[in-house]
Amino acid sequence: MASLWIPSHPKPDPSQVSNGADGPTQRTITAPLPNPSLQVTADHQLKQVEAPVYAPGHGEVLLHIKATGVCGSDIHFWKSGRIGSLVVEGDCILGHEAAGVVLRCGDGVTNLVPGSQPPVLLIVKGDRVAVEPGVPCGNCWLCAEGRYNLCEDVQFAGVYPYHGTIQRYKVHPAKWCHKLPDNVTYSEGALLEPLSVVMHGIKSAGLSLGRGAVICGAGPIGLIALAAARASGAHPIVITDLEPRRLEFAKTFVPTVLTYQVQKNLDAQGNAQEIRKLYGTHEYVAPEVVLECTGVENSVVTAAYTARRGGTVMVIGVGKEIMNNLPFMHLSLAEIDLKFINRYRDTWPAGLQCLGGGILDLKPLVTHTFPLEKALDALHMCSDLTNGSIKVQIMDDVEATI
Amino acid sequence: MASLWIPSHPKPDPSQVSNGADGPTQRTITAPLPNPSLQVTADHQLKQVEAPVYAPGHGEVLLHIKATGVCGSDIHFWKSGRIGSLVVEGDCILGHEAAGVVLRCGDGVTNLVPGSQPPVLLIVKGDRVAVEPGVPCGNCWLCAEGRYNLCEDVQFAGVYPYHGTIQRYKVHPAKWCHKLPDNVTYSEGALLEPLSVVMHGIKSAGLSLGRGAVICGAGPIGLIALAAARASGAHPIVITDLEPRRLEFAKTFVPTVLTYQVQKNLDAQGNAQEIRKLYGTHEYVAPEVVLECTGVENSVVTAAYTARRGGTVMVIGVGKEIMNNLPFMHLSLAEIDLKFINRYRDTWPAGLQCLGGGILDLKPLVTHTFPLEKALDALHMCSDLTNGSIKVQIMDDVEATI
Amino acid sequence: MASLWIPSHPKPDPSQVSNGADGPTQRTITAPLPNPSLQVTADHQLKQVEAPVYAPGHGEVLLHIKATGVCGSDIHFWKSGRIGSLVVEGDCILGHEAAGVVLRCGDGVTNLVPGSQPPVLLIVKGDRVAVEPGVPCGNCWLCAEGRYNLCEDVQFAGVYPYHGTIQRYKVHPAKWCHKLPDNVTYSEGALLEPLSVVMHGIKSAGLSLGRGAVICGAGPIGLIALAAARASGAHPIVITDLEPRRLEFAKTFVPTVLTYQVQKNLDAQGNAQEIRKLYGTHEYVAPEVVLECTGVENSVVTAAYTARRGGTVMVIGVGKEIMNNLPFMHLSLAEIDLKFINRYRDTWPAGLQCLGGGILDLKPLVTHTFPLEKALDALHMCSDLTNGSIKVQIMDDVEATI
Amino acid sequence: MASLWIPSHPKPDPSQVSNGADGPTQRTITAPLPNPSLQVTADHQLKQVEAPVYAPGHGEVLLHIKATGVCGSDIHFWKSGRIGSLVVEGDCILGHEAAGVVLRCGDGVTNLVPGSQPPVLLIVKGDRVAVEPGVPCGNCWLCAEGRYNLCEDVQFAGVYPYHGTIQRYKVHPAKWCHKLPDNVTYSEGALLEPLSVVMHGIKSAGLSLGRGAVICGAGPIGLIALAAARASGAHPIVITDLEPRRLEFAKTFVPTVLTYQVQKNLDAQGNAQEIRKLYGTHEYVAPEVVLECTGVENSVVTAAYTARRGGTVMVIGVGKEIMNNLPFMHLSLAEIDLKFINRYRDTWPAGLQCLGGGILDLKPLVTHTFPLEKALDALHMCSDLTNGSIKVQIMDDVEATI
Repeated sequence: MASLWIPSHPKPDPSQVSNGADGPTQRTITAPLPNPSLQVTADHQLKQVEAPVYAPGHGEVLLHIKATGVCGSDIHFWKSGRIGSLVVEGDCILGHEAAGVVLRCGDGVTNLVPGSQPPVLLIVKGDRVAVEPGVPCGNCWLCAEGRYNLCEDVQFAGVYPYHGTIQRYKVHPAKWCHKLPDNVTYSEGALLEPLSVVMHGIKSAGLSLGRGAVICGAGPIGLIALAAARASGAHPIVITDLEPRRLEFAKTFVPTVLTYQVQKNLDAQGNAQEIRKLYGTHEYVAPEVVLECTGVENSVVTAAYTARRGGTVMVIGVGKEIMNNLPFMHLSLAEIDLKFINRYRDTWPAGLQCLGGGILDLKPLVTHTFPLEKALDALHMCSDLTNGSIKVQIMDDVEATI
Repeated sequence: MASLWIPSHPKPDPSQVSNGADGPTQRTITAPLPNPSLQVTADHQLKQVEAPVYAPGHGEVLLHIKATGVCGSDIHFWKSGRIGSLVVEGDCILGHEAAGVVLRCGDGVTNLVPGSQPPVLLIVKGDRVAVEPGVPCGNCWLCAEGRYNLCEDVQFAGVYPYHGTIQRYKVHPAKWCHKLPDNVTYSEGALLEPLSVVMHGIKSAGLSLGRGAVICGAGPIGLIALAAARASGAHPIVITDLEPRRLEFAKTFVPTVLTYQVQKNLDAQGNAQEIRKLYGTHEYVAPEVVLECTGVENSVVTAAYTARRGGTVMVIGVGKEIMNNLPFMHLSLAEIDLKFINRYRDTWPAGLQCLGGGILDLKPLVTHTFPLEKALDALHMCSDLTNGSIKVQIMDDVEATI
Repeated sequence: MASLWIPSHPKPDPSQVSNGADGPTQRTITAPLPNPSLQVTADHQLKQVEAPVYAPGHGEVLLHIKATGVCGSDIHFWKSGRIGSLVVEGDCILGHEAAGVVLRCGDGVTNLVPGSQPPVLLIVKGDRVAVEPGVPCGNCWLCAEGRYNLCEDVQFAGVYPYHGTIQRYKVHPAKWCHKLPDNVTYSEGALLEPLSVVMHGIKSAGLSLGRGAVICGAGPIGLIALAAARASGAHPIVITDLEPRRLEFAKTFVPTVLTYQVQKNLDAQGNAQEIRKLYGTHEYVAPEVVLECTGVENSVVTAAYTARRGGTVMVIGVGKEIMNNLPFMHLSLAEIDLKFINRYRDTWPAGLQCLGGGILDLKPLVTHTFPLEKALDALHMCSDLTNGSIKVQIMDDVEATI
Repeated sequence: MASLWIPSHPKPDPSQVSNGADGPTQRTITAPLPNPSLQVTADHQLKQVEAPVYAPGHGEVLLHIKATGVCGSDIHFWKSGRIGSLVVEGDCILGHEAAGVVLRCGDGVTNLVPGSQPPVLLIVKGDRVAVEPGVPCGNCWLCAEGRYNLCEDVQFAGVYPYHGTIQRYKVHPAKWCHKLPDNVTYSEGALLEPLSVVMHGIKSAGLSLGRGAVICGAGPIGLIALAAARASGAHPIVITDLEPRRLEFAKTFVPTVLTYQVQKNLDAQGNAQEIRKLYGTHEYVAPEVVLECTGVENSVVTAAYTARRGGTVMVIGVGKEIMNNLPFMHLSLAEIDLKFINRYRDTWPAGLQCLGGGILDLKPLVTHTFPLEKALDALHMCSDLTNGSIKVQIMDDVEATI
């Protein structure tokens, strides 16, 4: 599950936010099709309701959302009502892994072209885009430094009070919509968001050609990390999980990977020793980077014992507030860096190059799709860990104009 | 306290080690003066006993040790008999923070000059040197990579089974003896070892000019870190400790530092908030680096809450095997790197430049000195936390020839 | 001389620019005092003329400019009419090293407070600020990445068509005005700009504690680099110049520096050998970083021969379009990085910490000051290389309200 | 062509060198087969002569060299008698891209196993190894720092006075022989040396997933760089050359590459503009890294104009002593790093992982092979630029025992 933002600042007044939330400052418009949306409520319910459609403001575009992937954090907002300090205090449309087509552009938009409005003789399709859901303030020192993912005033689509992408019509700043190459589908475009998490983690961790890596966890993020590590030339790569079925999927997805089923009867150090054996006898092919994609304490501790001396454990997964049992002296004596990331920055362009250029093929990860009207079923599918689903997406195949 | 090595390899046979330990392979010689030594025993005793004197082998020098600083790890070996997997299994001469003068050179030594042997008309003094106590194998992949501090076969003087420097006559490889500039005393030369720990930490953490730093702990390592951070241009610098007396010492030592007494009635987050207030209202002067010099869990957790977004916590202190209560989600969301070091590498030349060039003045840290024959008293002084001692050194002011 | 921007984009229409240039879109206001300004013309003249005063727009402030330093690039615009592709195509107010006081704030300014407007009972002074002269677009991928100094649409005050700071009343975006601590004067505030060039260079080059550095050139940038390298703990530091008088100034300014007068009868390699001798016999104290602050070909080539193996030559100075005689094979075999910077980013806050915290004292560099009405004399003083001036500043000591 | 070492130290006495050169300190032995060798002479001749066979000393192995690739530097030593300060002052066996099998081990060798000596009942093959030809001193500060490729006392096989690998029997330190996985052939093992040059360059330059790269030059190093950049996930990749035939080879070798034929009627800036067009309209997919693999001045200058703002030009090729026409102001304003490498360090293990793990397939690059007895023909083939040869190797397929 990708890392989401927990603001330390006071929550903004939802009536004042401009990023697609309901409010008196935004002008609603009438669309030719209904705008079904999936919303989470403050009392842990999901509901499918019609949502208003807004006109794009200055620098914004109105999108027809064609694909949204369901993320573990969506399930978490639904079932727990919060992730850390991010609390669902009112109705909020879910969804932050999305791609769509530009229907209309607000004033001042120069980077995107809208579709032609019927009736016209020549129908021109609007630009197809992937949505970067987090909109930073652009004004603080962290934004100036280029660490916009750490901006304390980010407005993140799909996290209360900012409405998300599981709806048909969504307004979003044009700057944070990235054009899809012709050979990249909406479904792949929606995978850019979890891919971005992985790319930011890999860039921070620093994989290199012919050096070993471990991926902890064969869920959606772990599998994307596996593909990206392979595409980066890391070798050998081991992926770990408790579930043999997920490891089998990983092996089919990336045949050169070595798989390791985490043994419940071994402690973290014991599992780490077994993982290390897969790298053979030479220390210098031991994994220099471990990409921890579960956020589970025991897995992080195993990762700490698995990395080579002078290596890096990159924590991509998010987990509980507090972690215990960290092997402090081992990290110290082996001089291992424990690194963390919060989402991503500057990753969409490179991610699109990977998908469009054939460097990465993530299509096999989408195991199930649902139409927008069945979004509720998509969330139920995703929340059930026994059905073997990897990435569930909500697709809206209608032709929407406005 | 500096981080010491815990080998994962089997212990070598003490009778075969060449780095100054007793063994049939080394030739003893007769010295004109006795060779009093301070040894720790397997049953947690200290004893002052005469030790044999060895002839330097190929590439080795025989030193007259003029100064040795007492380190917290020496006390630990005495009181607990171990640090992690480093176990005192037999008698071992303590001491690893040392400087001395070259009395005699073995074959093949080209970088150092010995003193002239009496009776001669012209007395030439041997080279004055600081001792780098860890001798790596020079043959493994970690040594080849330049990470010789992580070598799994390091022979570390003063850690069983390798005899240390609290004796008069000590054999050491010439390569790991660094010439002292004329204006650097033996006492300062002996401070190179803890300074090296700090310099390696600062180099890994990356302090920069005009950016804030925090030092956790005002013991010997913390105070050296304070001086080194000031000399690196970090600003503002806050130093923290539980003891007001230590903070007063720090303030006298580096007057521009801000001090913070850790409040026992506040939790880690509360203390972190108070520390952050000392940096003023602007987030961008919040500390980008926290140098954690205690290894105490609560202090590490406080450090994690104190660093700015995108900052670094550099753990220099060593502590318990396992650490609990790590604020996992905070580290993740603030994208803070948790880094660790194991001792040092390539630090003596730069450290000597600092001391010889007036960049650092560490002399005020030596609060107490004892003659070699009173080494036992030095360790007792150091083990008593109530007497206000910072760095206790054992000096041997006699003129030793051989 | 600091590196200025040469845009590859077409020049904007001066009548449309908002950053203080004359144009129909900006509203002029009436000020109680005249607004004398120093302008360069397209035909290589300087003129002192009254300039209009503008009302601050959204996010902007109206400043009373209290101090502006004269930079070599100002002289260059005057004498040559251009720097690279930056051409003076019309009248343009010079000046980009400035500090002032906030007189009035436009809408939406939250970070700064204006002075009270008379007549009022309680006179409140406006915020005192240092001006960051380059205003990036905030919208491009380079701005998003945090490399805003490389933005292709930067609006740089004092470079045609953007008016500069050698005038009394200047409008500037509030975001790019940095509050001065109480103990930092306007004169020092104006030094932030050249200091920023140096800090960006040092951050990119990576000076470290106790490692050698060379500064090529003892002009204003070289001397600030010297102070900043000393404050960063580099040691030993050698500064080079052709002029003995400048070296004497450097020695008085930073007494621990070693000076080297470049020998005209030696080639670059010969001078480099002489410089290296100042570091003594040990290769490992040879300079790991050379900060080249002249931009003169022969000096850059000397720098290339001076850096240690695996070291870095950081080119801070700007020079001719094309450079010849680069010792290509030497750089290759010694694995030396040749790095370049274009101005600065994220340097004002850290620079202000240095000046306010006593880490750097740059006041001795201001050798001459002139009142605003004598700005022309200031430029003549600066353009005359025989008078020993280092930094010439234009001060406006009147109390200006509005 | 790979970068070779030019020592600043005085040349050692060939009679005293231990790395396989003739000398009284080494004991010759009698081998069952002749030892044909290819030698370059001080008067620019090549000769095929019988060479003595030596017994391996302490830490050394006697190898049967099975494959040696011919490198452009071999041709250079032959035709020009020197590369920079590396002068052929006497007869010297050429060859430094080699793999072989261990016939016999000297004292103290623990990492390798020799073949069994006939007559024995059970024939055991010795370890198959790739030869790392440069043997650093292991004792200097550069070796300690891990930059052993910059060691000033390196003994490099195939560079006078150190005999190379174009012979049957060669003694080499066991530490610098790297075991081949079973699925890596001797021919591939010999490609480890040029691959190492590329891997060191890529590691220093820092390619990343989905970011553009350019390879200048489609010779052996350029083609290996192309394969390695593709395996690292860089995209899009453009390769440039003057020769259409070489570009066709590149396109067949890595089909996703874009090729650009350098236009002789365009200057460097003009060619750079054409190359940039291949990346499309978005600046952010412009190449962040240019791997310059020719060392030709015009190509380096083109590379400087081709890299994106804030990008890196990594000079892998070696060329003339002095380079002119460097676009100094462009590098400065675009903040482009110009980096250089000298050979490689720590690359063999990772390179072997790439070849053994299927990450890289370099076999198509070996276009011609010759038996050891026809080594002279191999050099003539390689020196003729019209025959389309890429990598020419000398193979010795006999079964040599000793």
